[in-house]
Amino acid sequence: MTVLGLGAMGTALARAFLAAGHPTTVWNRTPGRSPELDSLGVTRATTAGEAVAATELVVVCLLIDDTVRTTLDGLDLTGRTVVNLTNSTPEQARNTARWATEAGARYLDGGIMAVPAMIGGPAAFIFYSGAEDAFEQHSADLSVLGRPAFVGADPGLAALYDIALLSAMYGMFGGAQHALALAESERVPAVGFTNEFLVPWLTAMLGSLPRMAQDLDDGPAPGAAGSNLAMQSAAYGNLIDASTAQGVDPALLVPMGELLRKTVAAGHGDADMSAAVRMLRTAD
Amino acid sequence: MTVLGLGAMGTALARAFLAAGHPTTVWNRTPGRSPELDSLGVTRATTAGEAVAATELVVVCLLIDDTVRTTLDGLDLTGRTVVNLTNSTPEQARNTARWATEAGARYLDGGIMAVPAMIGGPAAFIFYSGAEDAFEQHSADLSVLGRPAFVGADPGLAALYDIALLSAMYGMFGGAQHALALAESERVPAVGFTNEFLVPWLTAMLGSLPRMAQDLDDGPAPGAAGSNLAMQSAAYGNLIDASTAQGVDPALLVPMGELLRKTVAAGHGDADMSAAVRMLRTAD
Repeated sequence: MTVLGLGAMGTALARAFLAAGHPTTVWNRTPGRSPELDSLGVTRATTAGEAVAATELVVVCLLIDDTVRTTLDGLDLTGRTVVNLTNSTPEQARNTARWATEAGARYLDGGIMAVPAMIGGPAAFIFYSGAEDAFEQHSADLSVLGRPAFVGADPGLAALYDIALLSAMYGMFGGAQHALALAESERVPAVGFTNEFLVPWLTAMLGSLPRMAQDLDDGPAPGAAGSNLAMQSAAYGNLIDASTAQGVDPALLVPMGELLRKTVAAGHGDADMSAAVRMLRTAD
Repeated sequence: MTVLGLGAMGTALARAFLAAGHPTTVWNRTPGRSPELDSLGVTRATTAGEAVAATELVVVCLLIDDTVRTTLDGLDLTGRTVVNLTNSTPEQARNTARWATEAGARYLDGGIMAVPAMIGGPAAFIFYSGAEDAFEQHSADLSVLGRPAFVGADPGLAALYDIALLSAMYGMFGGAQHALALAESERVPAVGFTNEFLVPWLTAMLGSLPRMAQDLDDGPAPGAAGSNLAMQSAAYGNLIDASTAQGVDPALLVPMGELLRKTVAAGHGDADMSAAVRMLRTAD
């Protein structure tokens, strides 16, 4: 295996390949990075070209999308499978796919759903999209990094799934942080509040997401809104006012109040939360 | 039992008492509301005073806090237990507790964690705070409405727990809505995305909340940040840019970006998400 880029994530990827017994060649712009890999038997290439020449599977994990292009530009990628795990947008992934394919490579884009410490462990998973034949050929090798999930031939899809799940995570964390700040405002211990109430409640509320998804795919089931948006929008101000009164900045809550108001104003007061999803679309 | 207020929630509460075999008296400002209760054997009082006189346990579920005061004002509450399930802020609950107690009542404030259709079912639960002896005496009766959780003698705590969990829920829903809007931008079917990826991912991420809570109670464990805030803040712009490029309004994501930036700027770049909680506090 070849790994280009030895930041925290690239190092974790190289380590996982080595731990699984794969001969692994690495390259990093600044040489000598991550000396702990040497005792695991890594091969260090002095140029990116040398690293790419070493193995068919080339995993790229650089800091930003721009450096992927500048690193691989001019190299012969014929017969190579390029797996780009650098953070990118769907659009960037499609562009990289285009020129990597023109340079002779099969291209897979990936979105890593893990922090470096989780790589190689049971909780890590990685989205892939692009050349399905390349994915089929290499999925066993790639599975040593994290559970692989192939989500489509469009190379932009892995990045799309990645940013979608990260957005969902930050929404959930933001809500939890606001809740914990409220708890702290009355000196309610965080651990008891979290274990007894916050986590069980959010777990129960996750149970309503499949229904929201069903409404999005099929249109809402008539009259089935458990708590319609007009009622929710009317009550929402209470959350903001009460937070402010408790000395907790309501900033994380504000946009949802605006979204509810906008969705009700657009005539969806009788609908439930799925109606707000379409209000987020600015283009089709 | 007495129930004051026959909105959707008050009606559900009265119905649950009746279904459990409790003789139940109701009063509503507009008479004749919720005729379906008549066939269940409800007693209708013509004044709030008549309803309050009927039973020791008086459940109040009105539209807004102001109407609780105007409805009960001037009534003799001696020997009554007033359970106020009207939406309120902690501050409002404390005020209501003060004058209800002066009027002779024992006071419990409640926060209902359910929509009306869930009342009396296994998923409903209700926070109570205030007069603990009244809670002990009535908890079996109150449990027919939903699982009761007593959270403290301060009558404001039930409202605090209520708004904290609702805030957390809206954060989670907002993140999920943004994720679903992104999925829709590439015509990814919502049900498959939700069941295969969104719900399992959020379930896994909920697993990090107890650690965040522990850090808040005890201070962060040194060097343990899985992905520090400086890294997260630097990468966060990608979520906003990619969302915008997909035609999805990033409004729900924006305040978290600002919170991360502010937390890093305050010198907490090496910390993890718990550090952002304290940045939300505007007063102590």
